[in-house]
Amino acid sequence: MHSYASDKMIGSTMAYPDARPFRHRRFGQLLSTGAGMPGTVVSNQALIDGMDLIASDRAIQHSIGIRERRHVKRGNKPSVYLERAARECLVRAKVAPEKISRIIYARLTGDQAIPATSLNVLARLGVRTGIPVMDVSVACSGFVHATELALNCINAGDEYVLVLGGDRAAVDVEANVQKDTRTVFLNGDGFAAALFGVCDRQKFFGRYFYTDSSIGDFAYIPFGTETLCKAHQPGQEEFVLHMPNGPNIHQSIIDSTLIISSRLFSLCNKTVDDIDFFITSDQTAMSWKAQLQTLGIPESKSCSCFHKYGNTVAAMVPLNLNEAIVTEKLKKGMTVLLMGHGAGASGGGFIFEY
Amino acid sequence: MHSYASDKMIGSTMAYPDARPFRHRRFGQLLSTGAGMPGTVVSNQALIDGMDLIASDRAIQHSIGIRERRHVKRGNKPSVYLERAARECLVRAKVAPEKISRIIYARLTGDQAIPATSLNVLARLGVRTGIPVMDVSVACSGFVHATELALNCINAGDEYVLVLGGDRAAVDVEANVQKDTRTVFLNGDGFAAALFGVCDRQKFFGRYFYTDSSIGDFAYIPFGTETLCKAHQPGQEEFVLHMPNGPNIHQSIIDSTLIISSRLFSLCNKTVDDIDFFITSDQTAMSWKAQLQTLGIPESKSCSCFHKYGNTVAAMVPLNLNEAIVTEKLKKGMTVLLMGHGAGASGGGFIFEY
Repeated sequence: MHSYASDKMIGSTMAYPDARPFRHRRFGQLLSTGAGMPGTVVSNQALIDGMDLIASDRAIQHSIGIRERRHVKRGNKPSVYLERAARECLVRAKVAPEKISRIIYARLTGDQAIPATSLNVLARLGVRTGIPVMDVSVACSGFVHATELALNCINAGDEYVLVLGGDRAAVDVEANVQKDTRTVFLNGDGFAAALFGVCDRQKFFGRYFYTDSSIGDFAYIPFGTETLCKAHQPGQEEFVLHMPNGPNIHQSIIDSTLIISSRLFSLCNKTVDDIDFFITSDQTAMSWKAQLQTLGIPESKSCSCFHKYGNTVAAMVPLNLNEAIVTEKLKKGMTVLLMGHGAGASGGGFIFEY
Repeated sequence: MHSYASDKMIGSTMAYPDARPFRHRRFGQLLSTGAGMPGTVVSNQALIDGMDLIASDRAIQHSIGIRERRHVKRGNKPSVYLERAARECLVRAKVAPEKISRIIYARLTGDQAIPATSLNVLARLGVRTGIPVMDVSVACSGFVHATELALNCINAGDEYVLVLGGDRAAVDVEANVQKDTRTVFLNGDGFAAALFGVCDRQKFFGRYFYTDSSIGDFAYIPFGTETLCKAHQPGQEEFVLHMPNGPNIHQSIIDSTLIISSRLFSLCNKTVDDIDFFITSDQTAMSWKAQLQTLGIPESKSCSCFHKYGNTVAAMVPLNLNEAIVTEKLKKGMTVLLMGHGAGASGGGFIFEY
C-alpha cells in the first residue's frame, strides 16, 4: 500500500486531486499503434562535429544513455511524418482512414500555429469528409492527455479516434541559438500514432491525471503573446525548450511515477504484481531505469526507445508502446500500466488491458 | 427542411460528416459565464493616429461595423485576464475555485508555449490542488470545441469543468510588422470563461462538428517548426494572423452557419422556430447579420459584441453568451442554438437548454 502523504513532488507546494473512476458506458480500447520516424540517423559524434562542441560520445552515453536520434529532413513539416505514423497504425488495425471519427494531435509547435496541424494530417490521409480534428498542447504528457480525451469521445459516440503525438523536438540543433550542451543531445524528432475504438467490455480500468503549477518552471518554451509585443524581433531562443535544472526534472519524474501509480493501484484495486507491462515517458535512459526501480518492475516488463530516439516529447509514450507491440513483448490480454510525465508540471496515466 | 446537397462551403472540395447523437448518461449543463476584458478602450481614430494609417473612422464603421476594441496592458499576460473571467464566472455560479475538476483553455498564443497557460490560470486562482488542465488550439471555433470536450469529461466523471477562451488577438497592432489595413481594425484582445456542471436531465440535445482542410488557407498563422529551422531570425509577420481573402471568409462563415444548423435541426428534430436565442462567432458585424438573415432569426433573438470588442478569436462566442446572460436577453429555460466558425476550416455547435 502506497502512502499518499510522502509522495510530494520535489520543490512542489501542491496537493494532488483524488482519483475519479471512469463513468464510461461505451468502452474504448487500444486497437493499434504506428511510428513515423524520420530516416536520418544522427549519432552523438555527428552532433559534436557538426556544432563544434566540447563533448565525447562516451560521456554522453554514460550520462544520459543516448547513442543516436532522428532528425527530420529540412522542408518536411510534422504532418509528413504524422501521416506515416497514422497510415501504419490504420493498416495494422485494418481500419480505412475514412472510418476515423476524430483526430487529436498532441503537439509542440506543429506545421503552423493556425489552422490545426491535425487538419493537414487529415488532408494528407486523403480523407474527403471533414471530421473534427484538434491540436492539444501538453508537452511530454500530451499523448496520455489526448488518450483520455479520445476515450471520453468514444464514450460519447465516436467510433474510432486517432491520437497523434510528437514533433520536431530537436529544433535547437538547427535553430540560431547558443547550444546548451546539457540539452542538445537529449532531444530527437519523432512521431507516433495510436488508434482507439469501441469495445464491448471495460478494458481501461482507471485513469489518473494531475498538474503541478508550483514547479511549472522546470521545463518551458518562453514564446507567448508578450514575445510579440516587443519592438524587436524575437530571438530563436524564445522558441526552444529550456531545462535549467536537469536533476530536478529527473527527480520530478520519479515523484510523478509514484503519484500516478499509487492512485491507479488504489483506484483499480491492483498492485504492481498485477502489471504485466509498463509503458512510460523516458526523458533519459536513467529516468526510465529509475522509474522501473521505484515501482519494482524488471526491465523485461518494459521497453525504452530513448537510446535510439531521444526525448521526442509527446511521441515518447506511443513510440515505446509501438516498440513493445512490434517486438511482441506486449501481447493481447496483458495488463498495462501506462503513464506520461511532463517534467513535473503535468502527468497522468492508465491501467488497461491490451 | 434544409438540403444537404447545396450546403457546400465556398471553394471547398470536402464532404461533411454525419451528425452523431450524444451518448451521454451523465448530463452536463451551462452554469455561468464571465468576462475578463482589458480596461484600455482603443477607438478606430486612435489606431489611425497611432499607426499613421490612411483610413477613416466612418469608413471602418461602415465596412466592418467596429467602433472600438480593447487592448491588454503591456506586460500583462493572457492569464491575468483569464483569471478575472474565471473568477467572475465562478462567483456567479457560487462555485469555489477548489471545486473545479478541470480547466480547458482554447488559446491562440497564450502566456508561453510550454507549460500550458491554463496551468498559470490555476495558480492565479490560488487552487492548491493540481487538477488536470489543458490548452487546445482551434482558433475562432476553439470555445465550442472545448465545450464539447468539457461535456464529454463531465459524462466521464468530472464535476465542474471551466472552459476558457480568448487571447491577445490584436497583437499585430504592436508587433513589428507591416500593418494590413484590411485586418488591423478587425481584431481585439478579449477573454471569457464558462462553467459547466452536472445536471439530472439532458439539456444539451445535440452537437455537430466538422473541419474543412480544403480551405484551411483562408486564415492562418505561419509559425511552425520550419520557422525555427531557418538560419535567420523569424520575422514577427510569421506570428500574426493572415487573412488574404476577406470576402471568402465572410462567405465561408455563412456556409458554415447552414452546415451546422441543418445538421443540428435534423439531429434534434427541431426547426428554427424552436430556437429562442442564437449565439455565434461574429467575425464582423456584417458576418453576424448575415448569419441571422441566413437562418431567419431576428436581431432581438441574438447579440453581438463585435462593435465594441472586435474579433477576439475563441472569446467571441463566450463573450456574446456572457452579454446575453448579463443583459437578461437570454433567460433560464430558453432553447439556444450556439455555434462557432473558424474561418471555414473548422466549426461546430450545439442546441441546448439554458
